[in-house]
Amino acid sequence: MMQEQLWPLIQAVRAQAPLVQNITNFVVMNNTANALLAVGASPIMAHAHPEIPQMLAICQALVVNIGTLDDYWAEAMRLAAAEAQRLGKPWVLDPVGAGATPYRNELLTQLLPHRPTIIRGNASEILALAGLSATTKGVDSTVASTEALGAARALHAQTGATVCVSGAVDLVVRGTQVAYVANGSPLMTKVTGLGCSATAVLGAFAALNAPDAFAAAAAGVALFSVAGELAAAGAAGPGSLQVRLLDALSSLTEAEFMGRLQLTVS
Amino acid sequence: MMQEQLWPLIQAVRAQAPLVQNITNFVVMNNTANALLAVGASPIMAHAHPEIPQMLAICQALVVNIGTLDDYWAEAMRLAAAEAQRLGKPWVLDPVGAGATPYRNELLTQLLPHRPTIIRGNASEILALAGLSATTKGVDSTVASTEALGAARALHAQTGATVCVSGAVDLVVRGTQVAYVANGSPLMTKVTGLGCSATAVLGAFAALNAPDAFAAAAAGVALFSVAGELAAAGAAGPGSLQVRLLDALSSLTEAEFMGRLQLTVS
Amino acid sequence: MMQEQLWPLIQAVRAQAPLVQNITNFVVMNNTANALLAVGASPIMAHAHPEIPQMLAICQALVVNIGTLDDYWAEAMRLAAAEAQRLGKPWVLDPVGAGATPYRNELLTQLLPHRPTIIRGNASEILALAGLSATTKGVDSTVASTEALGAARALHAQTGATVCVSGAVDLVVRGTQVAYVANGSPLMTKVTGLGCSATAVLGAFAALNAPDAFAAAAAGVALFSVAGELAAAGAAGPGSLQVRLLDALSSLTEAEFMGRLQLTVS
Repeated sequence: MMQEQLWPLIQAVRAQAPLVQNITNFVVMNNTANALLAVGASPIMAHAHPEIPQMLAICQALVVNIGTLDDYWAEAMRLAAAEAQRLGKPWVLDPVGAGATPYRNELLTQLLPHRPTIIRGNASEILALAGLSATTKGVDSTVASTEALGAARALHAQTGATVCVSGAVDLVVRGTQVAYVANGSPLMTKVTGLGCSATAVLGAFAALNAPDAFAAAAAGVALFSVAGELAAAGAAGPGSLQVRLLDALSSLTEAEFMGRLQLTVS
Repeated sequence: MMQEQLWPLIQAVRAQAPLVQNITNFVVMNNTANALLAVGASPIMAHAHPEIPQMLAICQALVVNIGTLDDYWAEAMRLAAAEAQRLGKPWVLDPVGAGATPYRNELLTQLLPHRPTIIRGNASEILALAGLSATTKGVDSTVASTEALGAARALHAQTGATVCVSGAVDLVVRGTQVAYVANGSPLMTKVTGLGCSATAVLGAFAALNAPDAFAAAAAGVALFSVAGELAAAGAAGPGSLQVRLLDALSSLTEAEFMGRLQLTVS
Repeated sequence: MMQEQLWPLIQAVRAQAPLVQNITNFVVMNNTANALLAVGASPIMAHAHPEIPQMLAICQALVVNIGTLDDYWAEAMRLAAAEAQRLGKPWVLDPVGAGATPYRNELLTQLLPHRPTIIRGNASEILALAGLSATTKGVDSTVASTEALGAARALHAQTGATVCVSGAVDLVVRGTQVAYVANGSPLMTKVTGLGCSATAVLGAFAALNAPDAFAAAAAGVALFSVAGELAAAGAAGPGSLQVRLLDALSSLTEAEFMGRLQLTVS
């Protein structure tokens, strides 16, 4: 029963305090570092090309988020993803704005062959990313009509990644396995970068190198969405939500988590 | 009566949820994105040169804020402002630190000919910017002795922009039209980047392309200052104020707004 | 009695409102600017090479924090530190991640000869930095076995800086003078960049150019740790702590400060 697997994984992050390197966007650097600290992990933010290999060597996982790009940062992401693949370290990709510009698409096309462990995005980003990936295999047309679930499955098939799709209900997809997490709050869409924070948190769960990669990703998604829901209940608005979310990620108990968790696995 | 025009414009932003591209400074990226979300708009932060035209094409307005510059960012700002002008899209300029260094002044001199829709700054920035603008017309000496109101009028005459001057009383200036908004709180000066957030919010109001550009700018200024005043009343300090400001921008009602608004138009 | 010297120095910062230039990392720019505002100082964040000398000319102190580097930022730090030394302006160095990569170490080796007024880091950073400094003098082996106090003393001997070591108990070291500040809270380690904020605040105290440099650094360290302790008492988690810390830095009274201060000088 997957539901029973999640809390021990959340506890494992708190116990192991994995070090997670982040090459992420300017908007959310502070928030994602704080989200990692709140779940019990330790963030490192470092993007200088010469120090990427040494930083990654001391980390247990890498997070790459393409939100605010320029050529230097794009190259840092390519270098880090390649190094993570070479070292066999888990890494998480957040394809922010996939499909919006050729510049983003080109970078994503270069990153995917480094086989991210987890990909997390919203439905349109996952659809766009699967389209890119499919394009390189000449099956673009079939992707256009799929829902995000189909796109997530295609992405998994092409990259091996566990694919997480955020929304009113979050999906975690790995081949034929699908978990639906029906937690969260609409107020979460009114705070910038909560998706990016969820991605960073997934970095901590990827770092566990858990035997069941699907359950580990589901644990990260569920933790973030349950904490967000708890934080939103009683928040006076998006400003309060941000504050309360970090508090909730940090203090969430097993009873609170299990009491609120709305998980379906198919 | 202008007072009656403001709330419908605030509602229009909430209803239309305009997409606003921001090329802004590192200090305030998170806060300005959250301010835009709180007033009902959608922020995009993207500065990579190759993707500026595509990003702007899907946005309804652009915000350029020169707070933390380097050559790449300065060029991104020039490209974006030129593209906004070419596309006829409204754009807002925040001349942070105008007059402090030749490097800033040179960039501002290059940006002004692209005719920003709205310029927002504090009195010294507006005075410096009008001086630059005047210099290029050889009338530097007359500007040095004007108050911010005179400088704002001169800037409007030279660029066509509605000019907003923040302070204990905020001014909105467009030719002979002047609105005075006497809301806000001194505590707002103890939080970094609230002026930058006000500028970002003005991007959402510029995006409306309202028939009355003066009223639209006044609505943005008034919304921000009334929400700030409401947030400050009851804040334990600058930390609380930040949180409460986002809450207030998001939840402000017409009754709260009209009950507090201190607007004079001359 | 040093204890009596601290509050007047805290009041001096509030009264003089020094302008402090910051060349710091992306993660903490917003927070460090707000921390400076909260203690009564004024932050400037500017790193463009051409404007560094003019910005520094109008500031009373400089803060250099190497958290998120690339070549442009590293060069900005070298330029600014050299200019501060040339102008005789106090400057503060935060050697984030010292020892983690050769890239960081090389930059630090270049910065130290510009004789920072204050160096603040955690124990491992201070040990690493003293090791670098010692290496250049060929005494690397002796440093490896010293505690942070020994490393701090060595750093002072080599650079002239007052050295602050953050931890459960904070040290302020200047030759044979050592102050121990036993305030703070373990929850402070769960918020990203509070050490960076402490460093920024030290910039405001360095700006005083107080006759007693040791007491000025101790005042900054004590203010930050007492405010953090006050903020943590009653915080629901790391999110709340951040908000309450800015409030506390801003509103702290002499009675609260002296009532909580746990200072030992040897």
